[in-house]
Amino acid sequence: MDDVTMVSVAELGRMVESIFMRAGFNAQQADAIARIITAAERDGAKSHGIYRIEGCLRTLAAGKVSSGARPELIDEGSAVIRVAADGGFSPAAFELGLPALAGRAEKLGLAALVINDCVHFSALWPEVEAVASRGLAGLAMCPSYAAVAPAGGTQPLLGTNPIAFGWPRSGAAPYVFDFATSCVARGEIELLARAGEPLPEGWALDAEGAPTTDAEAALSGAMLPFGGHKGSAISTMVELLAGVMIGDLTSQGALAELGTLDLAPKHGELILAFSPARFAAGRPGDPLARAEALFDAILGQGARLPGQRRLAARARSEAEGIALNAEELALIDRLQRDGLAALG
Amino acid sequence: MDDVTMVSVAELGRMVESIFMRAGFNAQQADAIARIITAAERDGAKSHGIYRIEGCLRTLAAGKVSSGARPELIDEGSAVIRVAADGGFSPAAFELGLPALAGRAEKLGLAALVINDCVHFSALWPEVEAVASRGLAGLAMCPSYAAVAPAGGTQPLLGTNPIAFGWPRSGAAPYVFDFATSCVARGEIELLARAGEPLPEGWALDAEGAPTTDAEAALSGAMLPFGGHKGSAISTMVELLAGVMIGDLTSQGALAELGTLDLAPKHGELILAFSPARFAAGRPGDPLARAEALFDAILGQGARLPGQRRLAARARSEAEGIALNAEELALIDRLQRDGLAALG
Repeated sequence: MDDVTMVSVAELGRMVESIFMRAGFNAQQADAIARIITAAERDGAKSHGIYRIEGCLRTLAAGKVSSGARPELIDEGSAVIRVAADGGFSPAAFELGLPALAGRAEKLGLAALVINDCVHFSALWPEVEAVASRGLAGLAMCPSYAAVAPAGGTQPLLGTNPIAFGWPRSGAAPYVFDFATSCVARGEIELLARAGEPLPEGWALDAEGAPTTDAEAALSGAMLPFGGHKGSAISTMVELLAGVMIGDLTSQGALAELGTLDLAPKHGELILAFSPARFAAGRPGDPLARAEALFDAILGQGARLPGQRRLAARARSEAEGIALNAEELALIDRLQRDGLAALG
Repeated sequence: MDDVTMVSVAELGRMVESIFMRAGFNAQQADAIARIITAAERDGAKSHGIYRIEGCLRTLAAGKVSSGARPELIDEGSAVIRVAADGGFSPAAFELGLPALAGRAEKLGLAALVINDCVHFSALWPEVEAVASRGLAGLAMCPSYAAVAPAGGTQPLLGTNPIAFGWPRSGAAPYVFDFATSCVARGEIELLARAGEPLPEGWALDAEGAPTTDAEAALSGAMLPFGGHKGSAISTMVELLAGVMIGDLTSQGALAELGTLDLAPKHGELILAFSPARFAAGRPGDPLARAEALFDAILGQGARLPGQRRLAARARSEAEGIALNAEELALIDRLQRDGLAALG
């Protein structure tokens, strides 16, 4: 722990933004990406923090994301707001669409934000948290790339297809969950493969479609959905709503277009926003207060709310800064200085 | 199999309707209940078929449902259509709200139907199937009554909280899934308790909150959510969106009001409808054709689509009629003749 350097959240944000500017992204893209990566690092979500920078830059180097993308808002006054991401990363598209989404949900009670043609590397929780911070409930989902077999199947077809949900709380950070509809994230299997350790039963199939606990065999086979046929059904719903319905790529299409699991995939995203004030209008009880009673009942029996660990890490980061080790600092330095050439 | 009588779907519908009329339900209630119970029996979904009739009548006898309920449509032109179910069973409320929901989803791209103050005994798949039959995607959810502990908890708090989803298919019955967010339906634990058989690990807790494989102990304890903390999070979302947000009872509130798990609970329901035509407008590809390609890919690797068994039973029932055994026919006869007095 000797060689750890503390940087403030704002400082890390500026460092990450300068990396993306140096690599050639326009300010709108660099700013939004930096905010999302810094938020993950701040919350101790290392798998979506500065660890992601290199993958984003490699995606640019491979010509698979547009550094100059200018997302465009398309709003015809219905319950569906659309942002054409112009081949850029998703965060700038989301930031452009959020105010319109929130306004429409407040007006109509319910609205959807569709993001099309974006390249996706980020977790969904920052988005539903942003929706919930405006007093709305948010439900977000997107495909990824084909790496998961449907329950009862043998081959990769579905993505790890995350689903995230946020609920507003007064005087506290929103209630937020965000999880892959696969048993685990692919990264966890990669870590076990590197360590030469076996997988638990039920996580994966080998290339022939047979159940395996061999991590290497799993990486050339398929992951399985969480929760058996139920999780598989939810993952299929994500393909339908956030791929097919919004006229964007499914996980299979995204993999076919990209040809690798090592770069960020291009597809769309669907975010629903609900106004509890509108939905509960004229009914007994305040929905926010009633939700607190539910959270209290969950906590009161010793269960946890999702995201508690993340919020604790956030509080620490905001009070004490974010700890970066020598290797992380060196990487950031190199990327700030040399841009894409630093990728080697 | 000697004493089996075949009745047509229409015939069974009339028999069930006459039972509910005889028990005192108005024609709107009796008609809608009969349609939903008959559809379940037709599809081989015995647990929601004529088996449910007695429970519905006992709920009436206990004064926990209104036999004369007249659901009322409340439509202020937003994306949220509301039906006040007036303390009646949910099917009549849903039938009243469906055309308005579909019309609004076609107009705005996305709409919600909120049902308040209904008594609930039915599966959700007939509802999302009805939404999908109008060319829309449907997502339905509702609480039930506190019988499930949150992951990491010890006491019943959440309901079995079903989620159902439907997607329209041209030339075929809609793609539909419908499942409890608990590990299993409570009925399955009751069956194992009666048979004196143990439960699989991970299904339930005893009254002290400790894991148990004893079915009797589980019935006085709590079930567990499917899929660990992920299923628990989804179940919590159902409480928030389809209980708290719509200003209706949570599963804990529904149990507190009813005081028993043996009658049908009173709460609300949330049904979302999405127009794929609107969501996909201006984008490449026809969403219905693209969905078929996804279904083909699932089936092509030997996995099943949800509901295949149900649809096969439906085809048989429509061709050959529904098989009722002597006991079932005798029950129907008695209920048609004696009404609530037949309950004993």
